[in-house]
Amino acid sequence: MCNHTSETDALIHSTDPNHPANLICELCKLFYNNGWVTGTGGGISIREGDKIYLAPSGVQKERMKPENMFVMDNETQEYLRTPEVFKPSACTPLFLSAYKLRDAGACIHTHSQAAVMCTLLFDKVFRIANIEQIKAIPKVTEPGYLGFFDTLEIPIIENTAREEDLTDSLQEAIRQYPGTTAVLVRRHGIYVWGESVWKAKIYNEAIDYLLDIAVKMKQFGLDPAGEIGSEKKIQQLN
Amino acid sequence: MCNHTSETDALIHSTDPNHPANLICELCKLFYNNGWVTGTGGGISIREGDKIYLAPSGVQKERMKPENMFVMDNETQEYLRTPEVFKPSACTPLFLSAYKLRDAGACIHTHSQAAVMCTLLFDKVFRIANIEQIKAIPKVTEPGYLGFFDTLEIPIIENTAREEDLTDSLQEAIRQYPGTTAVLVRRHGIYVWGESVWKAKIYNEAIDYLLDIAVKMKQFGLDPAGEIGSEKKIQQLN
Amino acid sequence: MCNHTSETDALIHSTDPNHPANLICELCKLFYNNGWVTGTGGGISIREGDKIYLAPSGVQKERMKPENMFVMDNETQEYLRTPEVFKPSACTPLFLSAYKLRDAGACIHTHSQAAVMCTLLFDKVFRIANIEQIKAIPKVTEPGYLGFFDTLEIPIIENTAREEDLTDSLQEAIRQYPGTTAVLVRRHGIYVWGESVWKAKIYNEAIDYLLDIAVKMKQFGLDPAGEIGSEKKIQQLN
Amino acid sequence: MCNHTSETDALIHSTDPNHPANLICELCKLFYNNGWVTGTGGGISIREGDKIYLAPSGVQKERMKPENMFVMDNETQEYLRTPEVFKPSACTPLFLSAYKLRDAGACIHTHSQAAVMCTLLFDKVFRIANIEQIKAIPKVTEPGYLGFFDTLEIPIIENTAREEDLTDSLQEAIRQYPGTTAVLVRRHGIYVWGESVWKAKIYNEAIDYLLDIAVKMKQFGLDPAGEIGSEKKIQQLN
Repeated sequence: MCNHTSETDALIHSTDPNHPANLICELCKLFYNNGWVTGTGGGISIREGDKIYLAPSGVQKERMKPENMFVMDNETQEYLRTPEVFKPSACTPLFLSAYKLRDAGACIHTHSQAAVMCTLLFDKVFRIANIEQIKAIPKVTEPGYLGFFDTLEIPIIENTAREEDLTDSLQEAIRQYPGTTAVLVRRHGIYVWGESVWKAKIYNEAIDYLLDIAVKMKQFGLDPAGEIGSEKKIQQLN
Repeated sequence: MCNHTSETDALIHSTDPNHPANLICELCKLFYNNGWVTGTGGGISIREGDKIYLAPSGVQKERMKPENMFVMDNETQEYLRTPEVFKPSACTPLFLSAYKLRDAGACIHTHSQAAVMCTLLFDKVFRIANIEQIKAIPKVTEPGYLGFFDTLEIPIIENTAREEDLTDSLQEAIRQYPGTTAVLVRRHGIYVWGESVWKAKIYNEAIDYLLDIAVKMKQFGLDPAGEIGSEKKIQQLN
Repeated sequence: MCNHTSETDALIHSTDPNHPANLICELCKLFYNNGWVTGTGGGISIREGDKIYLAPSGVQKERMKPENMFVMDNETQEYLRTPEVFKPSACTPLFLSAYKLRDAGACIHTHSQAAVMCTLLFDKVFRIANIEQIKAIPKVTEPGYLGFFDTLEIPIIENTAREEDLTDSLQEAIRQYPGTTAVLVRRHGIYVWGESVWKAKIYNEAIDYLLDIAVKMKQFGLDPAGEIGSEKKIQQLN
Repeated sequence: MCNHTSETDALIHSTDPNHPANLICELCKLFYNNGWVTGTGGGISIREGDKIYLAPSGVQKERMKPENMFVMDNETQEYLRTPEVFKPSACTPLFLSAYKLRDAGACIHTHSQAAVMCTLLFDKVFRIANIEQIKAIPKVTEPGYLGFFDTLEIPIIENTAREEDLTDSLQEAIRQYPGTTAVLVRRHGIYVWGESVWKAKIYNEAIDYLLDIAVKMKQFGLDPAGEIGSEKKIQQLN
């Protein structure tokens, strides 16, 4: 069933650096350098119109090439292009959930250590409040972004042995938290999506910043979701 | 009121890498790589003669281009050039405060995690003393720089829901601390300015170094503003 | 006994970036930038068919050139090429052990600080469980990879004054842990190998990620090998 | 007394990347990226034969150009070349001490945060033992390098208001510790020298690695100079 022909290759070859097949390669390299994807973990998928672009399983994320990409039809969920050698990523049904339930334009999955640490330090939900960077996170259920005084909540789901088996609980978390643009997976990492690839990237950067500073706050005994002024107690101890 | 013409484009196109429109792009990329601006947060503005160059709101700082810049007249505070699509940054009135009250040549705003952590670990004022890097910070009220035995003080103001609403308290902090070249904003970040873009960059680097080492000192129970020898107590515990 | 001739130079000169002599240089530069090899410490060796490529002793890893490489025959263990000036690395017998006992295609040695810290925080064996990144580690004794619920075990051997004297205990550890693809050396670093250079690199990245997050877990009092749910106790303390 | 002529410019212009004036620029950029020099702090000097090359005071280390260099005669200590605009670095007498007392080929000065933290966590001398990376440090008083079981000792001197006033105590420390290739300055940073620029760089990297891991050991209550096995006590606590 290999449909790797010159016709299907036209789907992933473009001189436009903003073509999804090129962007996936560029951004995976960036995420590798940030430490978010390493040792083949993590990935990114982009949907443009009726086509979904997906990186394959088990490849070094910083060394991908456009010809490694899978292309899928968004309606039929059939592969329009299958690269030689490679297998589809186990993340595929999770990425598809973000497209189906949220009409996302891109979905990023990382094994960010800040994300994993927060799934160990928080129980069912990651919460942070009153930090300026929160203002980069969208409200989702209505236009606009969270405010400084809002509390960002990201649900944490339990990990499963096989990545594809996360699909049900990820979808349930998405339905239960209609305002979330991300789901954390305990002892695993995070899924972040957005209306476009650039929105997804910006949300992922802002969320990772918040996860990272939450770990630092915990190290000092500060509550990341604490109200303004709750830090005074810690200041007196130091 | 879009004044985006070939005439106004001449304000931001230059082959000189030191032209403000080029420098803003170069430095924002550097600040992104340093982790100081991420997910569209933070920014930089440069004033050269009677013109002020400003990056737009909500853009990825590492991907800016000269044609994205706003240019404003320093006297009239009217826009000489407005880029297509983009909106002015909410930091604009804060940058203008540094130009008006301090005759600054550039102003940098970051969401540096070291800055945010210090606003949680210090009350009204960040204080550090007896660290060599302090000697990179200017006295401001007179020529020259702080000495090794001096205490660097940076006021911390409370954050507001809308960034532009910080203007009054930022201006008050600038007046109350005539020797400061920076203002910290609680749970938000820092504003640093200088006589020129390079001075502002150097001050920002030196201050960020000091904020960062202050967090590390706090982790060991060391007082960043403690007198020389105060570390002996901690050495005995370890 | 210098066999540095134009004939032997053909062994290390290639325009193919995937030639072992080129890859060693490229990867050592990457490892230097990652902080895994510094001040001439660490290294990498690649075996391709019947030839083993080895970086010399005491060189700056980020500045190596293909002409610095030793080439050895895998059967006879005689040098096919000896570079001018340089001496063979003291790691050589350790790399050869991975080739001999495990038929490895490449072996990486780093002084990663996460590795050294874990040899101080763990006794005879490093153990981590229930972290997604474990799934990048091979089972070795059978095809396939560890599962999420598996415990990764990496033996820790004691360091010796001379690196070559590690050979016996490294070989013993390899025999005692038939499923391991790495050996930690107390107060020294780690050896990681794989079926090919890319496999070795991926394993090394995944293991370093796990060593690094294990240190962070220890900082919060979390047991890296603790069962799922063991983190709840810590969540209640914070 | 400006001797900036085409004749003296020949001292600093070369197409050889290993010419001292080029190397100083390249290495300062590297040190900036490593976080060792920031906000104009730190620097490096190289001696080649009878000429000493020195970076100027107060410049951004990552943006230096060969034409910014001072060149001094090693015998007479007179400037052979003085760049326009710039002033000599206050580090100059300290660099000269390493040349005079140790016949060094290069001297590096950084404000490394690991170095500053160690001057706060250790009293008169920084001590670390039984860590493999120590083997990169030279014995100095005799040929060869420290062994794994040796203790590296680096004296810590007190800082002074003016950098040039460190000269006497730095020289005293060099005389008192004939085996040292570095001196730490409390609340300031470190001076490291070597027989050549590459040796100095390697020693600096290895020492910074050791200072950095010593801070991490202290965070866990581990004694960096503790004997092998002293870590067992901490393992039982965790």
